[in-house]
Amino acid sequence: MAREVVIGIDIGATYTKYGIVDRKGDCFLDNSVNTYGHPDVNSFLDDLFGTIKKTIESSQAEIKIMGIGVGAPNGNYYTGSIEYAPNLNWKGVIPLASLIKRYFDIPIAVTNDANAAALGEMMYGGAGNMKDFIVITLGTGLGSGIVVNGNVVYGHDGFAGELGHIVAVDNGRQCGCGKRGCLETYASATGIKRTVFELLADYTDNSDLRKIAFDDLTSKMIYEAALKGDRIALVAFEITGKILGKNLANAIAFSSPEAIFLFGGLAGAGDFIFSPTREHMEKNLLKIFQNKVKLLPSGLQDKNAAVLGAAGLIWKELLHF
Amino acid sequence: MAREVVIGIDIGATYTKYGIVDRKGDCFLDNSVNTYGHPDVNSFLDDLFGTIKKTIESSQAEIKIMGIGVGAPNGNYYTGSIEYAPNLNWKGVIPLASLIKRYFDIPIAVTNDANAAALGEMMYGGAGNMKDFIVITLGTGLGSGIVVNGNVVYGHDGFAGELGHIVAVDNGRQCGCGKRGCLETYASATGIKRTVFELLADYTDNSDLRKIAFDDLTSKMIYEAALKGDRIALVAFEITGKILGKNLANAIAFSSPEAIFLFGGLAGAGDFIFSPTREHMEKNLLKIFQNKVKLLPSGLQDKNAAVLGAAGLIWKELLHF
Repeated sequence: MAREVVIGIDIGATYTKYGIVDRKGDCFLDNSVNTYGHPDVNSFLDDLFGTIKKTIESSQAEIKIMGIGVGAPNGNYYTGSIEYAPNLNWKGVIPLASLIKRYFDIPIAVTNDANAAALGEMMYGGAGNMKDFIVITLGTGLGSGIVVNGNVVYGHDGFAGELGHIVAVDNGRQCGCGKRGCLETYASATGIKRTVFELLADYTDNSDLRKIAFDDLTSKMIYEAALKGDRIALVAFEITGKILGKNLANAIAFSSPEAIFLFGGLAGAGDFIFSPTREHMEKNLLKIFQNKVKLLPSGLQDKNAAVLGAAGLIWKELLHF
Repeated sequence: MAREVVIGIDIGATYTKYGIVDRKGDCFLDNSVNTYGHPDVNSFLDDLFGTIKKTIESSQAEIKIMGIGVGAPNGNYYTGSIEYAPNLNWKGVIPLASLIKRYFDIPIAVTNDANAAALGEMMYGGAGNMKDFIVITLGTGLGSGIVVNGNVVYGHDGFAGELGHIVAVDNGRQCGCGKRGCLETYASATGIKRTVFELLADYTDNSDLRKIAFDDLTSKMIYEAALKGDRIALVAFEITGKILGKNLANAIAFSSPEAIFLFGGLAGAGDFIFSPTREHMEKNLLKIFQNKVKLLPSGLQDKNAAVLGAAGLIWKELLHF
């Protein structure tokens, strides 16, 4: 009997990753195509599904494709569209699910990347038995997937869970969204880099980080400097954790989750980021919430989480889970 | 045939209100007993249910009591208990639902007052057809009831929806909860009063409010001063709306509701509070959320909202609504 699988697709600004995923979360035949090189969404989809079909055919795997789950920037679960994604070439509203139907006429579900990460965490990661939790993705920006009572919170328009754009600092740093002081301008890979540059200006300490241009600096380099005891790097993690922790406390006051998972490159910095985040989260909590909300690394940290999450989105629908 | 009704009970620190409510939200035989005068919860319940039974008997109403819904400070929906309510005489964990069972052995549900207000808004107020909305109660403190996908968000422990205690101002005003800068120290009847006193210190304008002691000042007096064009009062509403609006924008980024309802004395100040709140809410929203979230006065503003909400809590369960 053919193995029942779904296609999980993670559309990023530069690359689009995909994989074939069975219901247990085994991901195989995974690969990627270029996103940025396609100014037109139809040429992108031709490339993507042409590549997927070829991969499947040449593998001779005996599979039955049950559905397609897609995580995409500004992906709207209700409409199946990508709506006004600032960092994609395709402007306006892209009716993605309808467009994909032309290639595969099977159930298709779309959501944003952070919601997909939350679904992945629930189905294949560390949130297996949890009904209420939050996943924070710390990448170029800060994304959030919020689960309440076993379901991702989409809100009345499909766009809930934009914790990256809550105002963390009044009249703070300029954000790509047009506002100022958004949480992701402080708590993200880009945010900690901005903090490092502020500290390099403020302090006189020697630091390896003084040799690196803004455009070249990565959060991994900051982590490596911290490992060597670089004071600028250590203080940058401290400041990042302080702002993130305080805002996680506010999120807890909202939905009282059992756990908050941190995912992405910055989360890989371990105690450098977890320790100050936990400290300032606890410090800003009401007594009834103190010492009971777990702050955990994602259970999918080293896996293809976005593809697994996109696959989980459609598996959840197919299995009425 | 006897009319099917429930008992709605709203436990406040000073008084406890109750009413008999049918499924359409008609509230009758409503009255209140003293809360504060009972240092022991059992003597309170004897008084409350003794009074209710007498009221029903003497009315000779032909009713069938289907259940009891209770809104109470720190009421926990999952456990049916009142847990560590700071402003009640009864300390620790009070297993309220079990205690009430001794008087009426029928379905009983407990939640906090703001969640009850949200249920009231959904069943008998302005949120009739909405699946995602938030009710903010602006009383002595700031309470919030959050509805996602047609259900009140209780969180993993029953305590979700504490927006009064999100950190609105770093190292800000002292809060009764032990923290500093909590939203309710600015946006509530007490909060605006504190703002008035700050302004009376800062400015030299003449103001009727200079004749009133802190303990005597009410938000109604501030409203009346604003009506007369008192500058201190007008600026106080402006500041209150600015802080409230910004934090409502953050709440929208979280759950993307269709509407936010303001309830309570301060909400009665109409445009004085709605106008700056709306302005600063919109100003702090991501573009995808702008001009689509309604900011509305509660549809229960002049009704016995807390009793209706408590009744709605148990009606919702009985009707599997």
